[in-house]
Amino acid sequence: MDGTLPSGTVSNPEREYVHSHLHDLHADLDAWLRIPSISADPAHAGDVAASAAWLAEALRRTGFPVVEVWPTGGAPAVFAEWPSADPNAPTALVYGHHDVQPVDPLELWEHPPFEPTVVEGPDGPELHARGAIDDKGNVAFHLLGMRAHLAATGRDTPAVTVKLLVEGEEESGSPHFAALLRERRDRLACDVVVVSDTGMAAPDVPSAVTAMRGLADAEITLRGPAVDLHSGSFGGAVPNPLHAMASLLAGLHDERGRVTLPGFYEKVRPLGDRERELMSRVPFDEGAWLAGPAASRATAGEEGYSTLERVGARPTAEVNGMWGGYTGPGHKTIVPAEAHAKLTFRLVSDQRPEDVGPMVRAWVDANLPEGIVAEVHTPPGGVAPCASDLDSPHMGALLRAIAQAFDTGPDAVLFTREGGSGPEADLVEHLGAPLLFLGAGLPTDRIHSPNERVLLPMLHRGAEAAAHLWRELAG
Amino acid sequence: MDGTLPSGTVSNPEREYVHSHLHDLHADLDAWLRIPSISADPAHAGDVAASAAWLAEALRRTGFPVVEVWPTGGAPAVFAEWPSADPNAPTALVYGHHDVQPVDPLELWEHPPFEPTVVEGPDGPELHARGAIDDKGNVAFHLLGMRAHLAATGRDTPAVTVKLLVEGEEESGSPHFAALLRERRDRLACDVVVVSDTGMAAPDVPSAVTAMRGLADAEITLRGPAVDLHSGSFGGAVPNPLHAMASLLAGLHDERGRVTLPGFYEKVRPLGDRERELMSRVPFDEGAWLAGPAASRATAGEEGYSTLERVGARPTAEVNGMWGGYTGPGHKTIVPAEAHAKLTFRLVSDQRPEDVGPMVRAWVDANLPEGIVAEVHTPPGGVAPCASDLDSPHMGALLRAIAQAFDTGPDAVLFTREGGSGPEADLVEHLGAPLLFLGAGLPTDRIHSPNERVLLPMLHRGAEAAAHLWRELAG
Repeated sequence: MDGTLPSGTVSNPEREYVHSHLHDLHADLDAWLRIPSISADPAHAGDVAASAAWLAEALRRTGFPVVEVWPTGGAPAVFAEWPSADPNAPTALVYGHHDVQPVDPLELWEHPPFEPTVVEGPDGPELHARGAIDDKGNVAFHLLGMRAHLAATGRDTPAVTVKLLVEGEEESGSPHFAALLRERRDRLACDVVVVSDTGMAAPDVPSAVTAMRGLADAEITLRGPAVDLHSGSFGGAVPNPLHAMASLLAGLHDERGRVTLPGFYEKVRPLGDRERELMSRVPFDEGAWLAGPAASRATAGEEGYSTLERVGARPTAEVNGMWGGYTGPGHKTIVPAEAHAKLTFRLVSDQRPEDVGPMVRAWVDANLPEGIVAEVHTPPGGVAPCASDLDSPHMGALLRAIAQAFDTGPDAVLFTREGGSGPEADLVEHLGAPLLFLGAGLPTDRIHSPNERVLLPMLHRGAEAAAHLWRELAG
Repeated sequence: MDGTLPSGTVSNPEREYVHSHLHDLHADLDAWLRIPSISADPAHAGDVAASAAWLAEALRRTGFPVVEVWPTGGAPAVFAEWPSADPNAPTALVYGHHDVQPVDPLELWEHPPFEPTVVEGPDGPELHARGAIDDKGNVAFHLLGMRAHLAATGRDTPAVTVKLLVEGEEESGSPHFAALLRERRDRLACDVVVVSDTGMAAPDVPSAVTAMRGLADAEITLRGPAVDLHSGSFGGAVPNPLHAMASLLAGLHDERGRVTLPGFYEKVRPLGDRERELMSRVPFDEGAWLAGPAASRATAGEEGYSTLERVGARPTAEVNGMWGGYTGPGHKTIVPAEAHAKLTFRLVSDQRPEDVGPMVRAWVDANLPEGIVAEVHTPPGGVAPCASDLDSPHMGALLRAIAQAFDTGPDAVLFTREGGSGPEADLVEHLGAPLLFLGAGLPTDRIHSPNERVLLPMLHRGAEAAAHLWRELAG
């Protein structure tokens, strides 16, 4: 395995170290990716445990003086710590995960998902395997990054105390993660969290994720007649819950594409001019996105926002499922007794998932026709949104670290948003530390899909940026 | 078995004959109802054939000189003819069916469904059995009615030529009925059709059904993304077919409850003042209807029409089923690829079922958001609406016949509408004859449900009205 790196014009000992030790990174990843640590499949529980053990051993080999495998109610997490000798040094906690997504449909993979294979692509060599970027690649670059940091700065211990928490259930919804954070809060104490489970906008485009969205869900049941009625005898004269559901959901968005739940936007932090400007410079070929990953014929959404803003920076309401009445072959002439819908809401800071249920209930109650009763089920939990503070010194350090890995200045680092939701908000809530995001993925990496890959030059940049980051955070 | 009849103040030999021969009617019905002629269940095919044979024998016994069992592609029909000796007499064709609905759930029957049982009820003796009124009771009263007609008028042959066509597949959608009508058109030629498969508004309320509704159906599929998409990465930025389906169906009715398909009301014959006035006098306890058969919390529907008009005399659009996306437990954060809905339309004269498909297609096309494509499936067929000519001499004869059976004048006979749809329109189309409706059922007879019954005094009135009708049609 090999990759190419842009040549810098200034002295860059971190890059020199990374570039001369690529083999270590590639060999580590090759070994780790062969372990099918699919957390969603109980048959692979042993592999998830083996993945944790492999990582613990690799961290020890890297030099981390403290490495522990932490059991949870489910799959084990790996914790490591390398204290700085400087008593005033801040502490950074890297978050990642060592479990991977399932691989079906297997027949769509060009290479076996657990036999890592290098393929020469248009942007450089690619490593194909399940977990190549999500998230083993993103965790593995920290091993080389830490060694590059120490070598380049001539230190025995890092400039900041570095901790890692690499969980084993992220692809299964992190069911035991919050409990683990509560239980291990003291060991995990830190000044900043560095999430390494995301990526950048495009190859050769330095960028930083600044936020992830939260998630809340609701299920709505509407009831009309006590039983399905004959539409010839009753149709047109009693309320039909499917008609009521259609009208209700048709009113979920207004003509400007905004969610109509009263109060929904109240806690939304507006997008600042600087962030909008930096997001607008992210290269994004909407036609290619529609033809490719979005597999859609048109864009749609909230008026006044770009597609990248809609999927990353704005809250949404999405009907994920809807059903009621007769759905078999032919027809059945009924006025059905019930109609159902499942909705999820993506949230942005500072919306709270627990606020959504009462909003949905009030909105449904205000929009029910006579003769229809509603039941709204909003499970407890949900995921809070999270965001970096764009003006903090930590963010300044991150932007300088990324910029150096791309031979540019910090002002050239663009901002992106992650539209999905994960356990990152738990880190903020339980550890009380601000978030930074440093990942080497690309939107074209096919995470969760067949032929997942990582672009090796991006992975090398990740290692280098991590090395710079520990130095910059200490400064 | 026994029943009571109101005593008339004028001479009524038809009633006297019926009243003194009730035993024949009761005995016939008792025997016929013991044959479980469930056409929907192939295991009962032999019973349906036995039911046809029993009826043929009963018609011969009654005196019909021509009685034939006609095979079809499915269950057999029974044909009978008793020509009038008067060469100028018109011909009437009675339509009914000898098959019955299934009986599940059996445990809800108070008496075994095929062991006819007389129960004393608040309005007189009731005969409980599957088919008691739908439709064996309605057919059986014609046997006694014909004998009463002959005895009361002292004739050897009826005043009009009377034919009967009693099919065996009505409860299975009459799949071979139109073909039978085409094939036997010459034998079935007639001047008027008397449908005996309906009823009256209430006990002691003389009324005539004047129309039945037609039926057309459509299935709509909306497609958005080529595959289900992750709502975190794509939600809020591409069109969601469930949102599009909700908006589409929310617009199926306007704020006045009218169907919005362009042209839908163009061929609707407006309700005349006389018919509205006669319908408005039909006793109808809306509260009891809501609490009982309609099992609903409120009425709903087209502005400007009563509930009885809405279910009988106005066309409707009903969503019978709707589905799409994730419908299992928990949530799944997707923008689904597809959404589906099944719709049926009840039609009134002179709407045509074949017009509905193109209307639905045009309406869907005009209301699709960008990025959503639609497929509209409208199966061929459907059922045409049918209606009596309220001003015809035949209708005058029917009203006089019913009025005499209730000791009143023809102006006191109210009008009702049958909201359901059946093969009656085929009779109009293939035989070119106008329709009359004469049936002895009541809205409270629980047809198609457990504990189906007929109120015996209503059955006796049906026999008497039939006897009067043959005389009145000749006049």
